[in-house]
Order: sequence, then C-alpha cells, then structure tokens
Amino acid sequence: MRQLRMGMVGGCPGKFICDAHHMAWRLDGLIELVAGSFSSNAERNENAGKQLGIDASRVYATYQEMMDKEAALPEDQRIELVASITPNQIHAPVALAALRAGFPVISDKPLSFSVDEARDIVKEVEERNLLFALTHNYSGYPMVKQAKALVDSGELGSVLKVVAEYAQGSVANTMASGDAKRIEAAKDPGHQTDVSACFSDIGVHAAQLTEYICGIEIEKVLSDISTIVPDKRLEDDANVLVRFNNGAKGVLIASQICSGNENPLNIKVYLEKGSMYWAQEEPNNLVLRRADQPMQILRTGRYFDLPGDAPKHATRLPAGHPEGYTEAFAVIYRNAARVLLAQANGENVDDLNRDFPNAQDGLRGMALVQAVYDSTQNGNTWETLQI
Amino acid sequence: MRQLRMGMVGGCPGKFICDAHHMAWRLDGLIELVAGSFSSNAERNENAGKQLGIDASRVYATYQEMMDKEAALPEDQRIELVASITPNQIHAPVALAALRAGFPVISDKPLSFSVDEARDIVKEVEERNLLFALTHNYSGYPMVKQAKALVDSGELGSVLKVVAEYAQGSVANTMASGDAKRIEAAKDPGHQTDVSACFSDIGVHAAQLTEYICGIEIEKVLSDISTIVPDKRLEDDANVLVRFNNGAKGVLIASQICSGNENPLNIKVYLEKGSMYWAQEEPNNLVLRRADQPMQILRTGRYFDLPGDAPKHATRLPAGHPEGYTEAFAVIYRNAARVLLAQANGENVDDLNRDFPNAQDGLRGMALVQAVYDSTQNGNTWETLQI
Amino acid sequence: MRQLRMGMVGGCPGKFICDAHHMAWRLDGLIELVAGSFSSNAERNENAGKQLGIDASRVYATYQEMMDKEAALPEDQRIELVASITPNQIHAPVALAALRAGFPVISDKPLSFSVDEARDIVKEVEERNLLFALTHNYSGYPMVKQAKALVDSGELGSVLKVVAEYAQGSVANTMASGDAKRIEAAKDPGHQTDVSACFSDIGVHAAQLTEYICGIEIEKVLSDISTIVPDKRLEDDANVLVRFNNGAKGVLIASQICSGNENPLNIKVYLEKGSMYWAQEEPNNLVLRRADQPMQILRTGRYFDLPGDAPKHATRLPAGHPEGYTEAFAVIYRNAARVLLAQANGENVDDLNRDFPNAQDGLRGMALVQAVYDSTQNGNTWETLQI
Amino acid sequence: MRQLRMGMVGGCPGKFICDAHHMAWRLDGLIELVAGSFSSNAERNENAGKQLGIDASRVYATYQEMMDKEAALPEDQRIELVASITPNQIHAPVALAALRAGFPVISDKPLSFSVDEARDIVKEVEERNLLFALTHNYSGYPMVKQAKALVDSGELGSVLKVVAEYAQGSVANTMASGDAKRIEAAKDPGHQTDVSACFSDIGVHAAQLTEYICGIEIEKVLSDISTIVPDKRLEDDANVLVRFNNGAKGVLIASQICSGNENPLNIKVYLEKGSMYWAQEEPNNLVLRRADQPMQILRTGRYFDLPGDAPKHATRLPAGHPEGYTEAFAVIYRNAARVLLAQANGENVDDLNRDFPNAQDGLRGMALVQAVYDSTQNGNTWETLQI
Repeated sequence: MRQLRMGMVGGCPGKFICDAHHMAWRLDGLIELVAGSFSSNAERNENAGKQLGIDASRVYATYQEMMDKEAALPEDQRIELVASITPNQIHAPVALAALRAGFPVISDKPLSFSVDEARDIVKEVEERNLLFALTHNYSGYPMVKQAKALVDSGELGSVLKVVAEYAQGSVANTMASGDAKRIEAAKDPGHQTDVSACFSDIGVHAAQLTEYICGIEIEKVLSDISTIVPDKRLEDDANVLVRFNNGAKGVLIASQICSGNENPLNIKVYLEKGSMYWAQEEPNNLVLRRADQPMQILRTGRYFDLPGDAPKHATRLPAGHPEGYTEAFAVIYRNAARVLLAQANGENVDDLNRDFPNAQDGLRGMALVQAVYDSTQNGNTWETLQI
Repeated sequence: MRQLRMGMVGGCPGKFICDAHHMAWRLDGLIELVAGSFSSNAERNENAGKQLGIDASRVYATYQEMMDKEAALPEDQRIELVASITPNQIHAPVALAALRAGFPVISDKPLSFSVDEARDIVKEVEERNLLFALTHNYSGYPMVKQAKALVDSGELGSVLKVVAEYAQGSVANTMASGDAKRIEAAKDPGHQTDVSACFSDIGVHAAQLTEYICGIEIEKVLSDISTIVPDKRLEDDANVLVRFNNGAKGVLIASQICSGNENPLNIKVYLEKGSMYWAQEEPNNLVLRRADQPMQILRTGRYFDLPGDAPKHATRLPAGHPEGYTEAFAVIYRNAARVLLAQANGENVDDLNRDFPNAQDGLRGMALVQAVYDSTQNGNTWETLQI
Repeated sequence: MRQLRMGMVGGCPGKFICDAHHMAWRLDGLIELVAGSFSSNAERNENAGKQLGIDASRVYATYQEMMDKEAALPEDQRIELVASITPNQIHAPVALAALRAGFPVISDKPLSFSVDEARDIVKEVEERNLLFALTHNYSGYPMVKQAKALVDSGELGSVLKVVAEYAQGSVANTMASGDAKRIEAAKDPGHQTDVSACFSDIGVHAAQLTEYICGIEIEKVLSDISTIVPDKRLEDDANVLVRFNNGAKGVLIASQICSGNENPLNIKVYLEKGSMYWAQEEPNNLVLRRADQPMQILRTGRYFDLPGDAPKHATRLPAGHPEGYTEAFAVIYRNAARVLLAQANGENVDDLNRDFPNAQDGLRGMALVQAVYDSTQNGNTWETLQI
Repeated sequence: MRQLRMGMVGGCPGKFICDAHHMAWRLDGLIELVAGSFSSNAERNENAGKQLGIDASRVYATYQEMMDKEAALPEDQRIELVASITPNQIHAPVALAALRAGFPVISDKPLSFSVDEARDIVKEVEERNLLFALTHNYSGYPMVKQAKALVDSGELGSVLKVVAEYAQGSVANTMASGDAKRIEAAKDPGHQTDVSACFSDIGVHAAQLTEYICGIEIEKVLSDISTIVPDKRLEDDANVLVRFNNGAKGVLIASQICSGNENPLNIKVYLEKGSMYWAQEEPNNLVLRRADQPMQILRTGRYFDLPGDAPKHATRLPAGHPEGYTEAFAVIYRNAARVLLAQANGENVDDLNRDFPNAQDGLRGMALVQAVYDSTQNGNTWETLQI
C-alpha cells in the first residue's frame, strides 16, 4: 500500500502548530512528505528540509516554485496534496497557488485573511473540483462525531439552544509571565485576520464545532468584543449572541484573557428531549442528559447501539485508552489521504472518509469573523453572515 | 440560650421551597416557629399549624391578622422575625405589613412582583432600620464566600469578565414527562414577576451571585429572551450581555429549557491574575486557576491561609463531610437569627453574621429583571438598571 | 403532629460529632430534645443544657440518673428515645442502661468497646424488643440506597468483588500541622476500641457500607495492619483481604495516614453484569457501568424507573440541590423517630422507615475489628468473624 | 536528520497492540520501518509487509532469518533496532535472537513467558551492553513522570503506602457480549505467561508504575488470586498485599472481571507530607494533596517550578491539548531511538532519553508474577521476589 506524496508550505518543526501537523500526518502512515517550502528564510528552509528528511532537490525557495516544479514532475512522482501551515496572511495565496497548479489542499485555519479571499478559494475549489480540507481539528474527536450523530439521528428532537465557549488563558498567561518578548508578541500576533485576533484564532473553532455538531447554520450575530489587554492591536475577548437558521438561539464566547485557563473549548447543546456537553480538555467523554433518563457519559470506544458510524470510524484504540488532540487532528489528514489515495488508485472510498471541514466551512468562518467585528463596530447590532 | 421566636407567612410543608425553608431554620437550633399564617385556605392553614406544632391560638387566618395580633402581644412573647414564603405576587404586601408592624423579615426571592414594590420595601426597611434578609441562598455556600474573599483580597487583580449560567431543565423536563397537569402549570407558573418567569425565578440568583462574589454592580444589559416552549405565557430562556460598573463585561444565561439538566448554576470569574469556577451542583469545590501556578481545588473546610473569615464562618463540618443546599440556605437564617438575638439580648454580634442578601440586593434584582425584559422588547438594546 | 421526646447522653455542642448529631436530629422537626446528661463535668453539663434549651430539672448529673428519673415520669412526659454520643468506652454501659430502663436507643458507632459488650447489647435489644439504631450515617445517603436497590434487584447479577477504601488524612494532617497538643491527642485518641484505633473508627464504616449495599456478609479476613506514625498507641493503617459468605472476594482499606486527604470513603462493587462506584465526598453521584451500555451517573433526586423505593424515601430535595453529610445522618434519626412515633400513636409505619443500621450491624463491626486485629497478630492469617 | 532503521517481529496491522506500536514508532518521525517478519503465516506476512510499505526483499519468513540476513547487510543499511510485538510465548526467543545478532530491542511486555527466560535476557543484555526497552507504556505519560519527580525531589517525604489498581472490564465485558468466539478466546488467551493470565497481562503494569513512580522495590507479596469466570484456564482476578524495600506497605489489585470498566489503571501514593493520585483514563491530571495546602491538579504542559525535567521532556503539546495513550507509548520509542541515533552518530545524548523501562524491570515483573502465583498456591503466604 503506497503512501500519498505530500508537499508542505510552512511547517518548520519547533512551533506548536507545525509540530501538531507533523504528528498528525505521520500518525497513520498513509502519507509521506516528499517536498516543501518551509520558510522564506533560506537557512531555515534548508534546515527544515533536512530535519524532515526531504531530498534537497525538492526543498523549494518559494511555494510558487514548489507548485510549478512539482506540477512539472511525472505524475507518479509529483506531490498529490499540499499542506499549508503558514501565517494567516498567506493562507489564501498558498491555497490558490496550489489549487491552480492542480493540487488538493489541506490548510490550517482560518481559511484566509479576508472574506473576499475566502470566496476566491471556494470558487477555485468548486471550479476545479479539488479536495480541500481545513484543519478545524476539534471536529476530528470521536465524541464530537458522536454528538453530531445523536443530533442527526433526530432522537433528541430539534436543537433549541447552544452555548459554546472557548475561554483560553493564552494572552493573559503571557501577560503574567513577565517575559517581555512574549508579551510584545501577544499584543500583536501575526496569527490573525485583518479585523480580528481572538475570534479568528479560536472563535471560528467554536463556531465550526457548533455548526458541525448541530447541523444548523449561524445566520446572524450580535457581538460585544473587547480589547482588554492594554495596547493590544486587536480584540482579545468576544461575547456573541447568535441566531441560527432553524430558529435556535445561542451564545458564543471566545476569549484569550482567561487567566490560568489552558485550552477549554466547551459546547453545550440543548435539544427538545435532551442535552449534551463536550469539553475539549477531557475529550473522550460526551455527557448526554435525556429528559427522561439518568445521565450518561458516552466514551470513546464504547458505542453499543448508539447512532452513527463516524465515531467508531474516528476511533483508533479500545475504550479506556485515551485519544487526544493529535489523534483528532490526524483524523482530518487520514480521511483526506484515504479519499485521495482511493481516487489515485481508481478505488471506491468509504464515504465516512469524506467527513472533514472544507473550504465552504472556512468561508462561513470568515464571514462570521467579519459579522462579529461589524456588530460591535456598529454599536452591537444584529449582523447577518454574508457568505 | 433562648431561641428566636419566628412567625411564618406561607410555607405549608410539602412543597420544595417551603420544606427547604423549614429545614434551613431548624438546622442550627437558633429559631423556634411559634406563629403563622400558612395558607389562605382555612383547612390547609390549620393543618400546617398542627404539622408544625404551632399553638392553635397563633395560627392566623391572614398575614395581616398575624402582624396585628403578634404586635399586640407582650414583648417577651411576640414574634421577633417574619419569614415570608409566599407566591411572588404577595412578597411585597407581606414584607410591608411585617415591616410596618415593626418586625424584621426574611423573605424568599424575588423581593417583589414589580420594581416599584421593591423600591417601597427598600424605603420601608431604611426608614424603620429593620433587618431584612432575602434568601438568595446560593450565596450561603462556603466556597462562594471563598470566591468573594479571594476577589476582595485583591491578590488576583480586578475582575475583567464574568460568565454566569443557570441552565435548568425544569420546564423542559416537565414537558418531557407527559404529565398534563404539570405541563399546564409549567406554562403559566404563579412563581414569577409581572414581566418575567425564568429570569425572575433563576436569573436573579445568577446575577446576585455575580455581584456578591465580584463586588461589582451590573450597570446595563442587552438581552435576547425567548419563550421557547409553545404556549408558555412568559419567557423560559434568556441570553444577556452585561456591562459592570468597573468596566468589566459578562454574559448571564438563564434558561429552563435545558432538557435533562438539574440545577446547574455555574459561575466563571476571570480576573487579571487568575480565574475561578464554581458549580452549585458540586458546591464544596472552588476551582482556582492562577496564571502562574498549578490549578487548585479549594475545598469547604480546608482553609489554611486563604483570605477571608467568612468561608470558615459558614462551614459546619470538617473537610470531606459534604455540605449541601440546605446548609447554605441555613446560613442566611443563622446569620439573621444571630444578629437579632444579639440585638434582643443587648450583646455585640460578630460582623460576619451581617453577611446575607438584603432588600437592596432584591431591588437590584428586580431592576435587572425589568431591564432584561425591556431590552428584548426594545429590540435588543442596552438598558441601564434603574435602581 | 407532636415531636418525639429525646434524652441525650454526651453530645456537648462544639465537637464535630456532637454537632453532627444535633443538626441531624433537628433537621426534620420530628424530635424535641427534653433531657440530657451531657458531661460528667458539672459545669459543662449545665452549660450544654442551657445552650440546648433544656429545662434545668431535666439536666442530669449522670446517665443512670437520667434513665431512672425519666423512667419515673408520667408516660406522656418522659423521654421516648436515648441518643448516646459518648466516648466509645461507655457506648455499651449507656446503651445497656437505657435499654434496661425501657428506652429505645440511637447510638454513635462503634457499638461498644469490645465484642463481648456488643453481644450483651444485642441480647438486651432482642429480649426487650426495643428499637436500636446505630449511626453508620453513610448508609443514609440516597445514592448508597440506590446502589443497594440495584444489587437487590438482581439485574446486575451476583456480587463478585468489592473494593472499599476509607483513606483519611486525619492523623497525617495533624502530624503535619505542627500543633503539639493535637499531635499528642492523635497518637492516643480516646475514640477507639480496646484493640484498634483506625479500623474501629473508620474501617467499620467501610465494612458496614459494603455489607449494606451488597447484602452479603464478611466471613473472614486476612489483615496487614500497621502503626505508621511513630509512638502511636494503636494502628493507623489497615489493608485487609476479605472473603464474603457468597463466595465473593474483596479488599478493605482503612487508613488515617493519607496526607492531604479529607474524608474519602469510596466503594467499588463489581457484579456479573455491571459495576458501581460511589464516593462519599461527591455523594449525590452513583456511577453505574453496565457491561453492555454506556456509563450512567445516577443522581440523587432523579430516579425514573430505577429499582427501589428507599432512595426516593431518603431524598429531601429536587435533583441538583446537593444533599450532604448532615442530610444522610438525619435519615437515621428521621427513620427511627417515625417508627417510634407511629408505635406511640398506634399507627402503621411505612417499612421504609425501618431501614437503619442496628445493634446486630454493630456486633458484626466489633467482630470484624477483632478479626482484623487477630489476623495481623497471628501473622497475617485468615480469621473468621465470631458473631 | 536520518531516521533509525527498524525491523519488526510480529506486529501485523489490525490488532490493538500492534496498531498501538505502529502509531507509537511513527509519531515522532525518528524511525523508519525497513524490515520485518510479521507472521509465521506466509500470506499474512507478505500482506503486512505490503501494507507497511516494506520492500519485499526485507520481509522475512522467520525472525531468525531476519536477524541473520539483516546482520549480514552493510552497516549503513541493516536494521538498528528490533521491535518485538509477538505472542508472549516467543518474547524471549525473539529478544535473545535479536540480542545475539547484535541488535538492540524494544519489546512488548511482559518480558518473557517464565522467570528463567527473563533472567537469560537480562544476562544477554548486560553481557552485550545493548539497549533494551520494554513497553511499559504507561510510564511514558508526562504526569506519571511528574509524580516520580515529586517523589524523587524528597519534598513530600518518604513513601508510606501505595494502592495501585488495574481493574479492567475486558474479560467480564466479553462474557456479557454473548459472542461465543470471543468468549472462548477470553477463557484461554494466548496473551499470558506460564502461570498467569490477568496478573501477567496488566498486574505487571501496575507494579512497574508503582516502582517507577516511587523509586522503591516490591520485596514480598501475599496474594489472593482467583479464577472467577467459569472454565477460565488461568486467573482473572488478583488482590495482593505488598511490602516494599523501604518498609512501605501497599495493595495491588489487578482484575479483568470488572464489568463495564474500560481500562482504569489508577495509583494512589501516600507520602509523609502529601499524597498523589493518577488515573490512566484522565492521564493529563495529577492530583497532588499536600497536608498543609489546598489540593492541586497538576496538568500536562503546565510545569512552572515543579521539580523534574522529565515531565516537560515527555510533553509534546501546550497545556490543554490532551495527550493520550499513543503519545505516552511513543515516548518509549522516541527515547530509545534518540539514544540509538546519538550512538550511531557518535553524538552525546540528553540523559532524559535514557528514561524507559528495561530488561531488569521486565525481570522484576516476571518474578512478581511468579511470587503472586506462589503465594495463593501456598495458602496466601508471604513470598519474596526472586530476582
């Protein structure tokens, strides 16, 4: 069974999100990294290539060069997927270059730096009919998929209300660290979109998780966003009222000033006949409360006759052997790789593998970021997402 | 040590909130119930009197009769405190009657049925300088007092953000029960104010807890309230953006359509140097996360050199012997009784006993209910509390 | 509805276990304390009487005087129940004096100071056919009763294995406190039996809980007990292998050297088709794991069609309103009082009220303490309980 | 940076433990699998080779052939490490063959099928001075290493008592599944040693974890082992009293009849000044209770000035990004690979990488299995480990 040949843009080992991608694509043994343009800094680019065991001839100075030269290679040698792990500002240029060179893409989120860019990507993906995966990694957890399957089954009735919170300590903890360099960086992180820092970094995860689990769409928002840490360039806190396309209401909270917190992305979904609670920091539990039964804790790997095939499909170990962040992340790489390998081999692929966030999800996220920004700018008004 | 003589209005045994009050006043042995007007139904009134062991001569047909006749008794016989556990509509009339007869009052919340009534009570309390306690019982928990003491100490810096949720399943669970009579009652509960059902029932608890712990005041709100259960007369769900008088922001969520939930009143307080989490359903834990230290779980009964005397003062048992809802409730009765007994005996009283919610807190709650209602009525506008 | 007249031996307010008893008997309003012999110290006895509001004429110098004088009072005045909250050394003499004077007894555990005394009490109780309740208070928790009801229902099959741990920090925490007086007291607590400190204090609770929940009896034990704190007179740690009369096996762990621990009494029951976990420090949860279903967390107040009436009968509040140590303790007083009031009034009493630990349970505990002691003395041999 | 060349014996994809090894060696990108003898069944062997992308010329019919032919390859081509993931019966022959061919070994546990075999391996390892890693994977968790570091630091004083439980539901859950084939397999699993099923499968993990964390050795044991599931060939349940070489006492519980359980390996360590609790199913938490401070929950990735470098060294992600079973497992592969790569490259290696279980640990485990067996055979006697 051959491995899928992947090229990477960005992704120098040593930074959190880069290492997370590396562990994710490695975990299942379906992918080999054969090319890359890891940094615009030549030395760092070369070093990353060495460290990752890439043949020097396929370590490219620019991502455009990678697209061009790889596209020129014989079909059985050239890359079959581009992974983009770059600063947000170049998510869109990289994605567009890859798509235009004919390569499927797996990109870190957010999809782009602006809504317009996001629309361009969606258009390109649709016209070229290429696979595009966006690493909203939290949707890769088996218990998230179980929550979705429970909603989809209809046995709990309609979704009435959702409260999703992503209350990081990141910026606040940095402020408390007394580390001048890190503090400076926290005040103006490159990792952002044109109008947003916190919400585009983590709020979009909470929103994507909500829409993914509930199968409904955020229609409009009323936000109260703030820049709480002094001198920070963009917002670090957002409280958002939400209306969904099925009439449900909700609250989205995204913040990076929650001192002492780690990475708690929590979601509560209230339906007619029950409710669910999932917390990213204990991801192998899904709390299910039905109105007429004792509380259940559903657990990764223990499915019995629970609805849905996706949870089991995303599970790698028997119950009680904790799966974590990397495993969830790797579900996205694994699913995308299986689809692409099957296509390359002319084989059928289990539709369960088509379950990963895509460009359309990314566009929704970018439109949400814009609407959240606009709402506060306009005096806490309701703003409809412009897709 | 003699017991404080108490008269009661309402409070027939058998209903949840009435039994809660009875256990609360009994627990510490400081109070004896000697008079009452338990029901406007003569038979029920008589039965309640018998069940509670009240001398028949002091079971009164109306609360006004109780006030009049008790006030006419010799000072060493007449009641020294009126407990009011009545439908919300008559909270104010009972309180005013008692105060005007010269009796201190301990009243179930909300303070009244309208803001105007609340103002009348506050005025009466101030003019007569009588003790008035409002049973916002959740503030009686030792770990709530520990949270307050930590904020007060200043060691965590200023409060930046608060998220308080009271997400009951009550109405939703009743809907799911298929019990026609209970369903009908849930649609139009008497237990409400003129403009609100859910928020006046439980939202005010979340708000009082927030102000109590944080030592700041809710200044204005922007609400999105809903009546989700069909045919319900008043709202059963509220999402509220909040601005505090110190510049902090927050979110208040109160709902009774959270299927399968029990009674989760949870609060997250984010300060400059740390954050705290308290959940009413596991009330003996207070999660304290400092930006620069490992997470701590503070526990009822284990205080070491934590700031504050109030937590210890509210604790009755050694650590690891769980204290619950009734114990917290009883702290309010106990503190009020100690103050009144000391006054009666001409003794000094430890100021820690003056720590209970009062009429002013009740007025704030009523003003909040009104502002929350107005905001949605006016199209989700910011509304300032009118105290 | 009149209250049951109770006399008390020991129980001066201010000590943990005494206050626990006082809150317990007060909580439900079924009992009035009318007589007592609170201390052999005359001043303390008098003060306790005043503090508890007892008429001076019924504050007796000795417990025997109380038995004699109360027995001589007219039937409608004399006490109807004796509560014994004394040092363990006089548990038996007090109980026997009360029984011989014709009074039912509610006694703190352990039943006595020696197995022989325990046998005497059981004999006296049986011959006189008097109610005798022993405050193994942990069996009063609703979720303990739910665990028992699940075993009794048979739906989980036979009990195969039990692991019960009571791993207190008490002695260890005292050692760490640096408080010389408390350290001295911890080394030779009066609160013990002739051969045991830790096991007779807390091990018996774990054993009683095990037998109560599982409906099986400890037949023999093999112990490894230790005195870990230097200079301590009796053991502070016990690891015990257990064989039950149904063939099941188990482990009992009782220790007071578990530094930093509070009061964790935890029990795991493994049956053929499922297992249960209950932890005293979070007493409103019962974890139920069936072999073929998702994990459930059963909760006080949420019973649906779970087996058993006893859990609901022991519950005072709606789900989500935490009940604690005092409420569980009070179930024993309440049940005993209801039985005695019904007898006094010639009424039938719901058999659910007959559910409290009794003298026979106390004898079993004392025999267990002896067997645990003997086993280590004899070189870690199997010792059969001698009832 | 080149990868370490590894050959594998056993390890056909599709079985739990094999897939666990594959994810573990892949995760960090330090190893490439270049050779293997995956199955004695030729077809399965060939398929596994294809699936794992091994060149057909290096897929060997027998493990001995692999050792011989690989040893004959040029030094820069031949394998540098043998991974053994075979039935327990051939752990020792495979290990010995690899060692004798000059290859370092990473082996699944237990070390061997008998104590004698274990001694042979230790001897061979010592004589040839080759790296030998045993996948007691649970010791790879960062919070396990933090527990060890806290003990090592001495700040909590000496270890007084340990309770380690590994209470699986595996066999019981299979019994309840009604699946005749799985039931038959559960009654006589190949995965065992000559005298033990349950204890050699999981008890050794609990024991290794205990010794690893506490830095003390099990000296003697008194066991009560049982075969509870009818017709099972070997034991499925063990309760074991333990004495350590520092005078501490403990209890080891290993069972596979705990219906409904998943994989709870829990350890409680009681020291003079505090205690610790770690549970494998929530592995990113370490509960630390000091006698004189509030409870702390230490968390993977949040180290501040906690003692020890090993926890951080074993951590791959920022706090709040859960690491799981696979990550812990992979720490063993990663550390071993780093040591071997450094040796191959003539570089120094950080000593933190030498932290993995080895052959001596495996021998201790086998001696423990034997002593546990002997104790029950001899009538629950104390048996000293024969190393």
